[in-house]
Parts: sequence; structure tokens; C-alpha cells
Amino acid sequence: MIYFNNDYSEGAHPKILEKLIETNREQTSGYGQDEYCQKAAEKIKELCGDQALDVHFLVGGTQTNLTVIAASLRTYQGVIGAETSHINVHETGAIEACGHKVLTLPSEDGKITVEQIENLYQSHINDESHEHIVCPKMVYISQPTELGTLYTKAELQEISNVCHKNKLFLYVDGARLGYGLVAKGNDVTLRDIAEFTDVFYIGGTKVGALFGEAVVIKNEFIKEDFRYVMKQKGGMLAKGRLLGIQFLTLFENNLYMELSEHADRMADALRETFDECKIPYLVENTTNQIFPILPDKVLDALREKYTFSYMNRVDEKYSAVRFCTSWATKTEDVEQLKKDIKNMLT
Amino acid sequence: MIYFNNDYSEGAHPKILEKLIETNREQTSGYGQDEYCQKAAEKIKELCGDQALDVHFLVGGTQTNLTVIAASLRTYQGVIGAETSHINVHETGAIEACGHKVLTLPSEDGKITVEQIENLYQSHINDESHEHIVCPKMVYISQPTELGTLYTKAELQEISNVCHKNKLFLYVDGARLGYGLVAKGNDVTLRDIAEFTDVFYIGGTKVGALFGEAVVIKNEFIKEDFRYVMKQKGGMLAKGRLLGIQFLTLFENNLYMELSEHADRMADALRETFDECKIPYLVENTTNQIFPILPDKVLDALREKYTFSYMNRVDEKYSAVRFCTSWATKTEDVEQLKKDIKNMLT
Amino acid sequence: MIYFNNDYSEGAHPKILEKLIETNREQTSGYGQDEYCQKAAEKIKELCGDQALDVHFLVGGTQTNLTVIAASLRTYQGVIGAETSHINVHETGAIEACGHKVLTLPSEDGKITVEQIENLYQSHINDESHEHIVCPKMVYISQPTELGTLYTKAELQEISNVCHKNKLFLYVDGARLGYGLVAKGNDVTLRDIAEFTDVFYIGGTKVGALFGEAVVIKNEFIKEDFRYVMKQKGGMLAKGRLLGIQFLTLFENNLYMELSEHADRMADALRETFDECKIPYLVENTTNQIFPILPDKVLDALREKYTFSYMNRVDEKYSAVRFCTSWATKTEDVEQLKKDIKNMLT
Amino acid sequence: MIYFNNDYSEGAHPKILEKLIETNREQTSGYGQDEYCQKAAEKIKELCGDQALDVHFLVGGTQTNLTVIAASLRTYQGVIGAETSHINVHETGAIEACGHKVLTLPSEDGKITVEQIENLYQSHINDESHEHIVCPKMVYISQPTELGTLYTKAELQEISNVCHKNKLFLYVDGARLGYGLVAKGNDVTLRDIAEFTDVFYIGGTKVGALFGEAVVIKNEFIKEDFRYVMKQKGGMLAKGRLLGIQFLTLFENNLYMELSEHADRMADALRETFDECKIPYLVENTTNQIFPILPDKVLDALREKYTFSYMNRVDEKYSAVRFCTSWATKTEDVEQLKKDIKNMLT
Repeated sequence: MIYFNNDYSEGAHPKILEKLIETNREQTSGYGQDEYCQKAAEKIKELCGDQALDVHFLVGGTQTNLTVIAASLRTYQGVIGAETSHINVHETGAIEACGHKVLTLPSEDGKITVEQIENLYQSHINDESHEHIVCPKMVYISQPTELGTLYTKAELQEISNVCHKNKLFLYVDGARLGYGLVAKGNDVTLRDIAEFTDVFYIGGTKVGALFGEAVVIKNEFIKEDFRYVMKQKGGMLAKGRLLGIQFLTLFENNLYMELSEHADRMADALRETFDECKIPYLVENTTNQIFPILPDKVLDALREKYTFSYMNRVDEKYSAVRFCTSWATKTEDVEQLKKDIKNMLT
Repeated sequence: MIYFNNDYSEGAHPKILEKLIETNREQTSGYGQDEYCQKAAEKIKELCGDQALDVHFLVGGTQTNLTVIAASLRTYQGVIGAETSHINVHETGAIEACGHKVLTLPSEDGKITVEQIENLYQSHINDESHEHIVCPKMVYISQPTELGTLYTKAELQEISNVCHKNKLFLYVDGARLGYGLVAKGNDVTLRDIAEFTDVFYIGGTKVGALFGEAVVIKNEFIKEDFRYVMKQKGGMLAKGRLLGIQFLTLFENNLYMELSEHADRMADALRETFDECKIPYLVENTTNQIFPILPDKVLDALREKYTFSYMNRVDEKYSAVRFCTSWATKTEDVEQLKKDIKNMLT
Repeated sequence: MIYFNNDYSEGAHPKILEKLIETNREQTSGYGQDEYCQKAAEKIKELCGDQALDVHFLVGGTQTNLTVIAASLRTYQGVIGAETSHINVHETGAIEACGHKVLTLPSEDGKITVEQIENLYQSHINDESHEHIVCPKMVYISQPTELGTLYTKAELQEISNVCHKNKLFLYVDGARLGYGLVAKGNDVTLRDIAEFTDVFYIGGTKVGALFGEAVVIKNEFIKEDFRYVMKQKGGMLAKGRLLGIQFLTLFENNLYMELSEHADRMADALRETFDECKIPYLVENTTNQIFPILPDKVLDALREKYTFSYMNRVDEKYSAVRFCTSWATKTEDVEQLKKDIKNMLT
Repeated sequence: MIYFNNDYSEGAHPKILEKLIETNREQTSGYGQDEYCQKAAEKIKELCGDQALDVHFLVGGTQTNLTVIAASLRTYQGVIGAETSHINVHETGAIEACGHKVLTLPSEDGKITVEQIENLYQSHINDESHEHIVCPKMVYISQPTELGTLYTKAELQEISNVCHKNKLFLYVDGARLGYGLVAKGNDVTLRDIAEFTDVFYIGGTKVGALFGEAVVIKNEFIKEDFRYVMKQKGGMLAKGRLLGIQFLTLFENNLYMELSEHADRMADALRETFDECKIPYLVENTTNQIFPILPDKVLDALREKYTFSYMNRVDEKYSAVRFCTSWATKTEDVEQLKKDIKNMLT
């Protein structure tokens, strides 16, 4: 069985394992206060072009989202996000368990618009009963989104502007950030994200690390005592260096970008085949997730050799599914899948 | 200025004040453990036709909702409700602040259907990733709804069945319960509600009391240690007898129903005029809230003498508003308003 | 049976009931946005000598404590209080349910010292692992304390100084504030409390109101959006004017002080008898709570006519108990109790 | 500099790294639903002698404690623990952030007694105002404790009995469980712990793993939907197999016990030297933590070559410190430290 169902089916890139072995017997301070975390943070600040940023390392995405949001909001404040957003759908209410409502906006493609944000904010402050309604204080977006789509630089800048005009924090979930940065047509750089946001994270788990997410904070209110919140929420790893070592390895020789490139090019190759076969998509995008709408019969046949995710039924005979490539996807597996698809569809 | 903007603009029915004065110098136990609370609870159990119920008295509606829901759910469980439901919209995230997500269902008229509930439940348990999604455990409905509509007995029974089949608690918010029980066309009795639900509350604040809501619990899990939760959430009134006295006065001589009758008949009278003028409604209903769609010019004129609530813009020249009657609405005020509307609209 | 077990056994002072009747049919805005709340707030600000204060009205003490503390703290911060403090012992974990730890200091008499606060703060910031420990951000004291004792003006000023030096909020729980202000030997005024604290509350429930506590806020961070937190925590009364009317009545003609005087003089009279009989106290104080240590036999005899609170066993034959006077205590009841005590003890 | 300050200064035992490399390119299901987690769980159940247990894998200790406790308690319930317990002191209020109070018992040596538990429980249920006090529902103990001491089998059984008599859950924090199981004089086995508790965890982070804690649940209420709580609290690792692989490696060939043996024997060797020099201890114990009381001058000298933890000042010239050995401690480092201590102290 070949797994195309997600981008965390394998372990880590070999260079990461090598580095873990190499440093294994070193004795370091715990809880992220070691030299590797410090060096990795320096490297990330350099790549973001801003030495005033704070960088912290956490283990997983849900943990990162709940820690950042809990550190940012007061009890009566909520976070705006797409109905399809990870925090709204796939974190078992982690944000609510920290006491905060997710204020949802409808979305077809995983993105929300500057108009939606402005409208929600205006309708809140203009409501006579606004004290009876959760106060919006943060905007959460994902880049790429959960549906693989990307905000353009112009869109990000507009959202950033409307947030700062209205004193809303802007938070970008970058669980798959690498796969966005090197996608065809993308015009957003790491520096742009650092510039436009109050806080964001760079995902490691899905881009070649064993695990790990790097939180990058520009906003002073969110920076304050962030490590207390990390500890309280169970997100401060005892052997913090494991995170520092991984992110240092990913970023010191451009490995993060190379691994992302591989995944996106594999996805492009798959997309080429679907396009040739005139297969429609649930959502079109250029990153490592592909959402073709296929006949159920074809899906049944594919299931004998491949694992992929079921999205939803489109009509009686067609369903949308997700194929996911990653830093670890093998070229021969993609070639085989392309062949099988072509055979089945033509 | 005459207030039609809500049903809590005045104090309390005079009989309640009399009773408070009469008992003022008596010394009683605190925290709801006095004789008045006991008698009021007995009376309510009798009217519900079930001596095994538990009855507790709280001060306000948001407090009641958050206390009941916090007492019912474990950390990973959520409550299903209409998008328009009070807990979702007008409680500043009180439920989320207790750690629980409100799982919303779309609704035009404030009601949700048995199919919506069943579909949400089935799609949850059939989702491979259901452990990543908040687990639905309670259904919250209002009778009447926030838009004044009513569930029929058949609808309530069906919802009750689907809840119990799926081990979901059914909770009815009865902030305006009296105005539903005596509405034209209503076929649901207090006994029905006691029979079909796990827990519900009878609203006093909006139906003649100074304040107060009576929670009625049938479910054993929710009953357990409920007073601990009341205390923890700040909902246990020191001079609890104030609640017992009010509910005893409301229920021992049918006063609650009489006050509700008055409000609904006043609303019926207003509705008659709107109907005569062929005014459409945002939502049609038979309880004490009326939602006419009126020309903005007319609304401006009405605002000089009357207070009412703005709902939303319907088109360039028309808006939906809310007129609310109550136990305290004066017949002459309604007559005046009817005249003014007729004059303006014809 | 005559109740000396607490100070909330009766209803309210007659003037309050009169005012409620007088205003009963008036129509006002809800949720504390009426004229009575505004006037009561103005009066309280005047008495505190500071027009820049914010004043809000809530129903009960636990609700007030949890609302103030939730509005003040970020997720990783805690509140310092005596082991005997109400928030630590008698609120069913209301503060923890809002996510915050109560950092306790030992206390024999209900008071904590400036040295204890400074030591806790210093030991926190000097701890290498301080990020693994709850961050102290607020100091909670009661005036009078739960054991009826009082801070002097000098003590309050010192505590205020150490709090502000260390950026800790100072919060005073004044559930029985009146009984402290008029106690023999007290040198603290309402103005002093307003000056020294960031936030405090003036208790109404135990001092002549049906219910109600007035929160007075000086600190800008705590002021911000306080009404959102009130609503979220279920503490915003629909008919908010009931609170405004009560506090206006209590404060516009010095009624609050007169009622407090009565209670304290009744307690002084009781104390006189205990002193004559050379009865020791669990804690000595000059407010409306008296904690004599009496032979169990005497207590059994007293129980036939009087209700009082049991505190703890002192030795095989003696126990500490609490007698509580209030604005409603009858002189003849105190005279009778004095006689009975004298007879039993001599 | 040689680190004796904790037991998580190095990476992992080489066998664990080997196994991670060996399996690195395998594709598995995520979130702990892979074959390695299943096999590791089977192995642990076998060693516990109970196939009906549930086993889950989390990343760190604070995360594990907060997840287990949040899964076990209803909103008004609290957990009993020693004042010195990790959940009370060193988790930045993680338990309170989940809404639950830690009900503390004084302790000199990290242990609590069956009498303390019974007294707290009895004083709770016998208190007239028990509904105003947090309801005790779980007992938390650590084996070994934070001060390295151990409960005997008889003590554990008694605590288990009093818990079950009073319907309290018993939870054992086994962050350093291995170092307890092989300590001199210990008479408690893994099977005993599985038998006596409702839930416990086997620590990996401090005993040879890169990270990881294995939660073992016997109680049906706590078992129910535990994975939902793991996900909500950010404790469900995407590449869950990393935990399964580590625990399988630790347990399939007795490696966990061997590593624990090494650490304890290293500690015994150090203890021997302290004993020879007649050095007193803050707390005596037989596990991998040693708490000698040493002259400040000696400590200053030791600090030039060694890192260790400062505990507290004992008098003007003496302080208590902590030396920690681990699976990774080198024999030559211990020999050197023994020599240096002898030289300095004689």
C-alpha cells in the first residue's frame, strides 16, 4: 500500500536523524534553553529579516494553535477564522477548551477575504448589544489553507492592514508553510509573512521533521511571558534541543525549501495527469494537496494500491478525495499512480 | 417614550412585591435551602407531573445556560444549537468560556429539525477523524425560540427520540416559556416538556418576576451535585428565598399563566393590525415577539413615541424590527400603537 | 429560633423595598444601562472622591470575585490570597474554573502581611524555573477579613506600595465593607480604599440590600471591556436597575453607614458579655462577627434557642463558634442572648 | 562541565535511535493508530498483567498530567496532592487552566498518607457547606515522589483502598517510575501499580527515551473517549509511531529496567560517599535523586566542574542541593565526583 493520504506518514529527513545521533550524548539545558534552540532561532530571525522577533519551538500544530491563541486573548475575546479552518474543525475544540470562541466566516476555498473581516468587525462594534457578543480580537488564517490554496501578497497585505486598523492580531498557521512558499505562482516570501503578521508558525511536522513547529512573534503583548503559556499548556518539551536541532538542520542549508520543492513538484506532476484527463477539482491549488473529483468506481480501484483521504460526496457517482505529496514522496510511486489514473480514466 | 423593545423593562408583578414585603423580616437559611424554595420546587414538580424531578433556582438566563451546560458536559463534548440560538449569539461566549463548543445548525426561524440533529450526529460518528472533532453530547433548543416560533408536540417528541437514541441530552431554554405555553396554536404543555427533556428551565425574569429562572432536571447524571456547579459559576443566590418566594407566587395560583396570557393577547392585537395592513414578517409566530418588516420612514416616525428593537435591513427602504409585549404591557399603549401604525400605513 | 449564624438571613432594609415598589412600573433600559445605575455610580464615585473610577453592579460575591479576577488576569497568572480567604475556601473553585490558581499564604487571623507578599513575589522572580510556576499578578485581601479582622490604613498603604512596585494588582473584597468602616478602632475610609487599590467591591447583600455588590475599578487594564466579562460570566442582571435602585438608596442618605453602625454596636454589646465572662476568642476583632470559644455543653444549650455557625473543635470540651450580627439584628434578641450567656457561664 | 542537575540532559538510548532510523521510511497511520503503538501497548499490558487496560502515548509529563486529570474530573471536582507535588508547584497552573483546583496536603518527604486523604475526604463530606467547597474526586501521587521517596506496597494498597471506598480515582505519576521499580528496598512492582490505581503513567522522557509517557488506564469512566481529550489538549502526536517505537524498544527486551538499574546504582555509589562523609540529607531516599546538605563553600567549589540543582538554604552556611543520575550517567563522571567530594569534605 502506498500512502498519499497525508504528509506525515514517514519519519524525518535523514539529515535530521544524523544530526540527532551526532548530538545524542551531549549534555544541554532543558526546556528550549540550549544552544541549538538559540542558533535555530537566530537563523529563523535572519531569514525573516527581523532581529526583534521572538522564536519558540513547540511539538505539534494543535498545541501551537491553542498556545498562541491562549497567549493572545483575554477571556471575553474570540478569534476569527474560516468555517473550514483547522481550529474550527479538527482540533476537538482546543480553542474553546481555552475559553475562546472561534468566530467563523463562510469559505469555499479555505480563504477568507478582507471584506468579510471588516464586515464582521464593523457589525460587531456597531451592534448596540456588542457587550453580549464575543469581542473579535484575532484573525486566524492558514498559508497554505487547509484546502491547499494560497493568499497572494496583495491579499495578505490588505488583511494585515484591516487587522491593524481595527486592533486585531493577525495570526498565520503555517503547518504547511514550505509547500506554500515554493508553490507555482506564489508571490509571498517568509519576510512578507513576518512583516504582515503579529505571530505565525513555520511547520516542521509536515515538512521533513520528526515533529516540531516554530512560532515567530512580532507583537509585544503576545511576546510577553509566552514561555509561561507554553509550559501551562503542556507544550514545553523537556529535551527542547530536539526541536532546536531539527529546525537548525532544516534552515541552515536551505533544506526546508528543497524538501518543499520536491513535494510541490510531485504534486504538479500528479496534477498534470488529472488535467490531461480533464478531471475537475473540489478546489484548485498549486501546493502539495490535490482534490480531484473522481468516479466512485475509479476510487474503489485505486484503493487497492493507494491510501488517500475521502473529502465528500459530490453526486451519486462522484466523490472528492485528497492526494497529498510530501518531502518523502517517491518519484516512482507518483509515476505509478499517474499511469494507473490514466489507464483507469481513458 | 413607550417601551416595546423587550419583556424586561419593568419591575415585577405587584403580587410578587407584596410577598417579598410580607416575608421580609423572616429569618431563613441561605443559598436556596429555605422553605420557600422547597415549596416552590414542590409546586413545580406537581405541575410537571413528576415528583422525581430536581428543581433549582438561578438568577438569570445566561447564568442558567452556562451552569446547566457545564454541569452536563465532559471537557471534549459540545452542545448542538441553532446558529441563531442565544448561547451561540448573545452570551459573550459564556459556553466557550466553560470550555465547550457550540455546534451550530443553520436556521431561518430559530428552530432546528430532527433531521439536522441526526445528520450532524451521524456525520460525526461516521467520520474517520471523529476524535479530532468536538463530540456532540447535548441538544439545546429554545421554546419559544429567539424568533418567537414554537416546536409542536410532535416535533419535540421526535427530537427527544433522536436525542435519546444517540445518547444526547435534550435541554430546553424556556426563558419565555409562559409566552409559548399560552400561544395560539400551541399544543405543548409543561408536562410534555418535562417528559421529553433531560433538563429545561422556566423563565421568570421575562414573565413577571424581578428576576429568576427555575431549572428542572430529570437526568440523573445532570442532577448529580448540581448545586456545586451553581456555586462555582456564581449562580447560588445568598438570599435564595427571594427566588423561592417569586416562583411560589407565580405558580401557586396560576399567576404565571395569566401573565403570559396577557402578553400574548396584547401581541395578537398588534399582529391583527399588521395583518390588516398586509405587513410581511421576518418570521411568523404566535408568541409575544412580533417581527414586522416596515418602511424606514414609518420606523423613523414610530421612534418618536416608541422604543423597539432593530433586527436587520431587508432592502433599501425596508427593515425588520421587533416589538415585544409582556405581562406589564398596558392595553392603552397597544391601542395607541395600533392606531399610529394604521394611520402611518394607510 | 433566633438566627445569629450569618448576616443574610433576612430580606432588605424597608427603604429599599419602598423604592423598588415606587419605581416598579417605570420602564427602563436593561443590563445596568438605566438612570438608577448611573446615579448610584455617580454617588459612589463622589463618596470615593474620584470621578475617574468605573462602577459596575453585580448580584453576588462569588460572581463578583470570579468576574473581577477573570477580567484582570492572563491565562498564566494567578492571584495571591490568604489560605483562609473566601476565594480559596468557599467558592467551589470558582477562580480555578476560570483557569487561575490561588497562590495561598498562611494566616492565623485572615490577614496577610506585606512581607509575605514581597517574599512570595521575590521567590517567584528569583526562581530559575519561574516559567514553570504560576506568575503572581494580583493580591486579594478582604476588608474586613473572613475572620472579621481589619487592615489598618498603614498596612493597606504598605500592601498597596509593594503591589504597585511589583506590578501586582491589589483587589479588596468588601463583602462586609460597611461593618469594617464603622468598627471601633478602624482608621480606613472608603476614600483610602479607592486610593490604595486597583479594584474593590462594596458589599450590599450582607449590609441591607436584597442582593448586590458594587465593583469600583481604578486600573485602566481592568476597566477595559469589563461589561463583556460580566455578561460572559452570567453576572449582568437583565433588570439592572434593581441594583442601581438598591445602591442609590443605600448611599444617598448615609443608610449604608447607619445599617453598618447598628450591626457593629450589636456585636460590641455581645462582645462585652463574652469579655465579662472571660471567654477567649478564636480571633479577636471589632466587626460584626464574633468567634468565642465556648464549652460544648453551653453550645448545646444555646442551640435550643439560637442558630450560630460552628468553626472548629479547640479541645475535648471546647469549640470555637461564630455569632454574626447584621443591619437586621434586633436589640431584644441580643439582650436575651447576653442574659442567656451570662446565666450559663456564671 | 558535567551535568548532574537532571535526568533529561542527553538524547536517547542508542537502541531507540537505531530503531527510529530503521523504521524511518516506513509509511504508517498517524495519531497513534499504527502497528508500533499497538505492539507497545500490548507489551505494556502484558507486563502489567491485565489485558483489559487501555494504553495511550503522550509526549511529556505536564501534558500527560493535565490530559489525564481533565479526562477524569467534572467541572466542580478537584484533585488531592502533596503541597510538593509536581502538579501543584511546577506546571504553571496547568491543572487550574483546565478548571480544577489542586487540594493540597502538607508533606515533608513528598509522600501523603492514607490518614491525610481520609481526613480531607471526611472533613469535606461532613462540612455543612460542602457544596461551597471543591469536591475531591482524585488522588494524585508520584512514585517515586518529586523528592525521590517511595511508597511501599502496603502504603499503596491502603491508599488504593481508601480511594475506592470513597469513590476517589487514584492516579500515579510515574515520570521516574523505572528508577523506583529497581530502587533498593522497593517492594512495588508494575503489576501492583496497575492493580492499585485507576490510571498511571510510565515515564519515558527521564528514562532513556527522546520523549514520551505511556498512560495506562483501568477505570472505565476515564477510558471513555480518552483520545478526544488527548487531541483537545494538544497531546496527540501526528507521527504517533515515534512514541510506539520508543516504548516498544524500552519494554520488549527489558531495556527500561536495565537503564533504570544503571541510574540507581550510580546514585547508590554517590550516596555511599556522602554517607562516609556523614553528610545529612534534606530527604533520604534510594532512587536516582540525592539531596545532600552541604557547606556553601563546598558547593561553590563543585560548581566549577559540575551542574546540580539548588533546593533551599538550610542555615547560614549550609544549603540543600540535588544531584541526579540517569540512564546516561557515566561511571567515570561519578567516580570523579566521589573523589572530589571526599577531598573537599575531609
